[in-house]
Amino acid sequence: MSDNHKLLDSYLTMINERLSEYIPDDGSELSQAMRYSLLCGGKRVRPVITLAFCRMCGKKESVALPFACAIEMVHTYSLIFDDLPSMDNDDYRRGQLANHKVFGDAMAMLAGLGLYAKAFEIVTDVGDISEIPTSTLLRASNSLARASGLDGIIPGQAFDIKNNGTKKLSYDDILNIHKLKTSAMLEISASLGCLAAGAEENVVLKAKEYAEKIGLAFQIRDDILDVIGSEEKMGKTIGKDREESKTTFVDVFGVEKSQSYVRKYSEEAIQILSYFDNNDFLVWFTGLLCDREN
Amino acid sequence: MSDNHKLLDSYLTMINERLSEYIPDDGSELSQAMRYSLLCGGKRVRPVITLAFCRMCGKKESVALPFACAIEMVHTYSLIFDDLPSMDNDDYRRGQLANHKVFGDAMAMLAGLGLYAKAFEIVTDVGDISEIPTSTLLRASNSLARASGLDGIIPGQAFDIKNNGTKKLSYDDILNIHKLKTSAMLEISASLGCLAAGAEENVVLKAKEYAEKIGLAFQIRDDILDVIGSEEKMGKTIGKDREESKTTFVDVFGVEKSQSYVRKYSEEAIQILSYFDNNDFLVWFTGLLCDREN
Repeated sequence: MSDNHKLLDSYLTMINERLSEYIPDDGSELSQAMRYSLLCGGKRVRPVITLAFCRMCGKKESVALPFACAIEMVHTYSLIFDDLPSMDNDDYRRGQLANHKVFGDAMAMLAGLGLYAKAFEIVTDVGDISEIPTSTLLRASNSLARASGLDGIIPGQAFDIKNNGTKKLSYDDILNIHKLKTSAMLEISASLGCLAAGAEENVVLKAKEYAEKIGLAFQIRDDILDVIGSEEKMGKTIGKDREESKTTFVDVFGVEKSQSYVRKYSEEAIQILSYFDNNDFLVWFTGLLCDREN
Repeated sequence: MSDNHKLLDSYLTMINERLSEYIPDDGSELSQAMRYSLLCGGKRVRPVITLAFCRMCGKKESVALPFACAIEMVHTYSLIFDDLPSMDNDDYRRGQLANHKVFGDAMAMLAGLGLYAKAFEIVTDVGDISEIPTSTLLRASNSLARASGLDGIIPGQAFDIKNNGTKKLSYDDILNIHKLKTSAMLEISASLGCLAAGAEENVVLKAKEYAEKIGLAFQIRDDILDVIGSEEKMGKTIGKDREESKTTFVDVFGVEKSQSYVRKYSEEAIQILSYFDNNDFLVWFTGLLCDREN
């Protein structure tokens, strides 16, 4: 196992252990519904990016761990809601039944909302994150509220819902949806890692540039895998976006040209990482994300 | 018009104007769905309490206005979700069709989630609330996350859903649901008003005690009005809780004894207000809440 693989494994362990501590099983169905979606072995792309940026900015990863976990909770919340019958109506997620298929719509919503609230509880908990100055915590919390809210996920999903059943979106429209739905939270993942480490403003900006690129590469790869991937590997329903006539990158450019976009954006992302010391891990991880089969 | 009435009117104007500024109509259906539920003339009980406590603690109300508006947004978000078909399935709210009846389930959810995210954006926005120290903003944000999340609304609603179709809840169970679903957010309303004014810890505790009492009085009055009120006055479906066999205070004690509980809790609340200077307005407003017909 390479050093990068080992580091990734240690990050996943840190993240999963802390997530489990934040949402203990108290015997209630609510806690079980939250844990069901939170602890089912997602790729943890976002929290890994947070830890990696914290390290590249010269602080030990544990400082950024509360931020990383909060971001993963927000991501999980958004997946639970995306899968609901009145949203994208997906039955499978991360290789298991979607939350609402197991716990029912109401409990699934409450589990999602509980995770979302817990994320804000964590990033505003001075006691838990005493190494980070209060002004930085406030800034991080505010950024998280914007990216997960009205400057990111929410209008992204609203736009996406409108896209259901239409094939008329332009390249710019698709790009806009991806930026709102995917890049906004990846930007937060990168920038909160830098903020936790007390990085300068220009460093935070570079991290955000990286995240925007990787967000596009990641999302286009997702669109490609929706066409060529296997359900077994993806752990979710395949061909769903096409079946529902959502316009994707693949519709506009075909698989081959879309994959060249993935390469273009991931190369640009890796280029930006040259700005950081100790970037080997994240360069490797970025390559992994863009070549992924699931 | 009495001085108290005039003061209440000025508070309502402040609150409604600021809420409208926070969520401008940008032409999108999302913004219209958010404004539909936010600006439809609710009683504004929670934000009025926030402003009143700020004033009683010696600061001008405008300092607490962002907190007050954030709390009203969280309250509106919780109402939008409560009314969804998979939750309480209510068609009317605040005298108009429920959000999902107008905009559909998906957009209603996004409107609710957008308002919830915006609330956190507001309470963590140092620029908007420069009069309040960053450590206080963090504490206020953290309290809001807990009350609207896993220490309040979320387990309260989970418990309430389980209560659907059963008549077997005890007095303690009902009290617990009311504390989680109603008192937690009222405690936040009171304590954030004090925090905005820079009040001492013992003052914040008194405000919370008041809020717990008023929360119970308010909720039991709601249960009574669900039996004896008119739909026209209430602006929502009447008899719903009984029809769905949720256990309420009225089931356990009957109307008359329940009303005596309303009196008991509201008198205890008013008693606590004697701890504060300039309490005339809130004493009057508390009486109004407990005798209300809607």
